[in-house]
Amino acid sequence: METVKIGLLGLGNIGTGTYKTLEMNKVQITKATGLNLEISKILEKDTTRERDITVCQEQFTQDPDEIFKDPEIDIVIELLGGVEPATTFMLEAMKNKKSVVTANKAAVAANFQKLTDTAKANHVEFRYEASVGGGIPIINALTTVLQANEFVEVQGIVNGTTNYILTQMTEFGLKYEDVLKKSQELGFAESDPTADVEGIDVANKLSILISIMFNTYIAPKDIPTQGISNIKQQDIEAAKVEDSKIKLIAYAHKEGDKLEYSVKPMLLKNSHPLASVSNEFNAVYVTGNAVGELMFYGKGAGPLPTGSAVMGDVLEIAKKIYNK
Amino acid sequence: METVKIGLLGLGNIGTGTYKTLEMNKVQITKATGLNLEISKILEKDTTRERDITVCQEQFTQDPDEIFKDPEIDIVIELLGGVEPATTFMLEAMKNKKSVVTANKAAVAANFQKLTDTAKANHVEFRYEASVGGGIPIINALTTVLQANEFVEVQGIVNGTTNYILTQMTEFGLKYEDVLKKSQELGFAESDPTADVEGIDVANKLSILISIMFNTYIAPKDIPTQGISNIKQQDIEAAKVEDSKIKLIAYAHKEGDKLEYSVKPMLLKNSHPLASVSNEFNAVYVTGNAVGELMFYGKGAGPLPTGSAVMGDVLEIAKKIYNK
Repeated sequence: METVKIGLLGLGNIGTGTYKTLEMNKVQITKATGLNLEISKILEKDTTRERDITVCQEQFTQDPDEIFKDPEIDIVIELLGGVEPATTFMLEAMKNKKSVVTANKAAVAANFQKLTDTAKANHVEFRYEASVGGGIPIINALTTVLQANEFVEVQGIVNGTTNYILTQMTEFGLKYEDVLKKSQELGFAESDPTADVEGIDVANKLSILISIMFNTYIAPKDIPTQGISNIKQQDIEAAKVEDSKIKLIAYAHKEGDKLEYSVKPMLLKNSHPLASVSNEFNAVYVTGNAVGELMFYGKGAGPLPTGSAVMGDVLEIAKKIYNK
Repeated sequence: METVKIGLLGLGNIGTGTYKTLEMNKVQITKATGLNLEISKILEKDTTRERDITVCQEQFTQDPDEIFKDPEIDIVIELLGGVEPATTFMLEAMKNKKSVVTANKAAVAANFQKLTDTAKANHVEFRYEASVGGGIPIINALTTVLQANEFVEVQGIVNGTTNYILTQMTEFGLKYEDVLKKSQELGFAESDPTADVEGIDVANKLSILISIMFNTYIAPKDIPTQGISNIKQQDIEAAKVEDSKIKLIAYAHKEGDKLEYSVKPMLLKNSHPLASVSNEFNAVYVTGNAVGELMFYGKGAGPLPTGSAVMGDVLEIAKKIYNK
């Protein structure tokens, strides 16, 4: 059986979840692909942290070129987060004829065209399923089996932290500040929660969805964006009176040549399938002119759900490279 | 630009929806694939029916060999329905080195192994996205980007007719017989509704899901199957008292080496995402050991949603054949 060697950039929470997904499902993955997948080199400073996976010290490197210049490595997984150096590393990997998989929404949203063009120019694959909706296989669906559609609309709940806060405010009548504080204590919200609560993270994901669905690039900073930090208990109560819920929605709609888009808290009737998406769950509601309305629902974050999406991308690339 | 020629077996409702999907989204499809897709020959007796699509008489044939033996045809779409002659035709197409796409759950469930083996032996593709959940891209997700998971469970609402009947009984307090009669008048249920209301259609779809998710073939007839024809208004009311709904569920669960499966009406708490799947909508709820819980929701039937899934499969095959 052929061995596919993989380089991993970053062994934080998501990197560890990805490594663990491969480790615990090795038999299934080998059966599905007919290939032996192996993460052979890992770029990571923290080589001693307790991680609940089996990694040898020899796998670690501090020099990204040891991955990019390794002729045995076919695929590079980028899980550093942030726009730089992640983007530079991904481009460098592609120029060295490595296919790239990432979960990094900030980098993909900021450099969508450059990353996809560079992959094309170097005849390598570039996949980013985990960048929107974590484990939910939305990107692959939009770019493969739904391609016979003209897309009309997307509405997405694509940030778990804000959906958790809104759900807790709705179900238990709690104040925004109190839920945020509790979420931070539980490690569920960042100590600086700005990117989540102000909708910046959602804007990154919406930018990626718009690129794919409408073949148009809108930079995240050009998407009108409003977060949830101003939502008061009285807004939640007013929504209840109208048999509705407030959700932070990534929205885009195309009519003719006109594309509208926004990130903002919206009122959804309780009968809408998105209204019952609670706590840390994510969902993307898509309308295509042939398929009609579709919803994809699942865990939008977490090491293993994200690891599932990252490894799914890796498997697809490996099967393509080795003709399986 | 290269032209991909397609043979179509059957121009009934689903065939017409598939043809229409290609016709109305030709620009999008050409942009997505870089290929010109064309349904060049159609096996269909009824050549005169009004169909709201542009078909020339020269495209029709009464001889399936005109499709199987045409060296210009790469892909055959089978939309005849029923186990035979559909299965024989699909095998014949494969032996003539045509890739095959079908929406035919009865034929796929009855002959899963033979169809997949014959495709493999002839180095052609075999895809059947539309056979489960209509337009919902569940099969592709399970066989590609979710393959890094060990699957644990599936619960599916995969028959629109029965879900419509149960929804109407629940929401309007109507009797089973009355809703069925109304559905038949509206053309929404068949004049002989047995396959739907007795769960046979659902058992076909569950057999396919089990083959894919658990790598085990269970013939539809070997799945314990109970339909909805015995559901009384008092059962619906009893469910309401427990804050629940009755849904016809395709169920399979694996624990260790033990696989359990059934088709039967089940009580779902209203808080369960499947409980809010109403009327003709379908949804498949899947649990994987890495990704956790996922739900795919959408239209499980209808010419255009099914056409979206069929053409999605065709596009994937065309891109693979022509290296796009």
